[in-house]
Amino acid sequence: MAENSGDNVIFVGKKPPMAYVLAIITQFNDGKKEVILRARGKSISRAVDVAEIVRNKFFTDVKVRDIKISTEEMTNQQGEKVNVSTIEIVLER
Amino acid sequence: MAENSGDNVIFVGKKPPMAYVLAIITQFNDGKKEVILRARGKSISRAVDVAEIVRNKFFTDVKVRDIKISTEEMTNQQGEKVNVSTIEIVLER
Repeated sequence: MAENSGDNVIFVGKKPPMAYVLAIITQFNDGKKEVILRARGKSISRAVDVAEIVRNKFFTDVKVRDIKISTEEMTNQQGEKVNVSTIEIVLER
Repeated sequence: MAENSGDNVIFVGKKPPMAYVLAIITQFNDGKKEVILRARGKSISRAVDVAEIVRNKFFTDVKVRDIKISTEEMTNQQGEKVNVSTIEIVLER
């Protein structure tokens, strides 16, 4: 996963999809050409929903430039190391 | 989403990830050069897990050649039309 963690990176977690959609719209309206969505584990499905909502309902000129998947090692609440899948979706306007 | 629905296409649903991992291993062991994973909605996260498990634990020579996301219109149990996100992950050996 690219080490880009500038202010055009949006981490998709457990909030309703519209929270992230609005964050992306704000970024594009601020003139950003590229917005990067990142998510882990079960939030990956939500990140895809968010990208699709932005493209289909708000900015039909936004394209998916790249999608990468990867694995991160994390420590869970029981102190065990577990592998978690990640996704990075690069949206370009 | 490509109209490829040959026998190298695996639909990832609600079974445990290992069920799909084994299906993919079987395909590659049968000599397939390419296996395509498809999933919808909340199963998208599982499809990413499956691809990552195959790559990291079983076939380290397998690469993600392409990932596409899209939206399908479906009819839910209440008879309403709803949009569902989809993913297609192309694995290549």
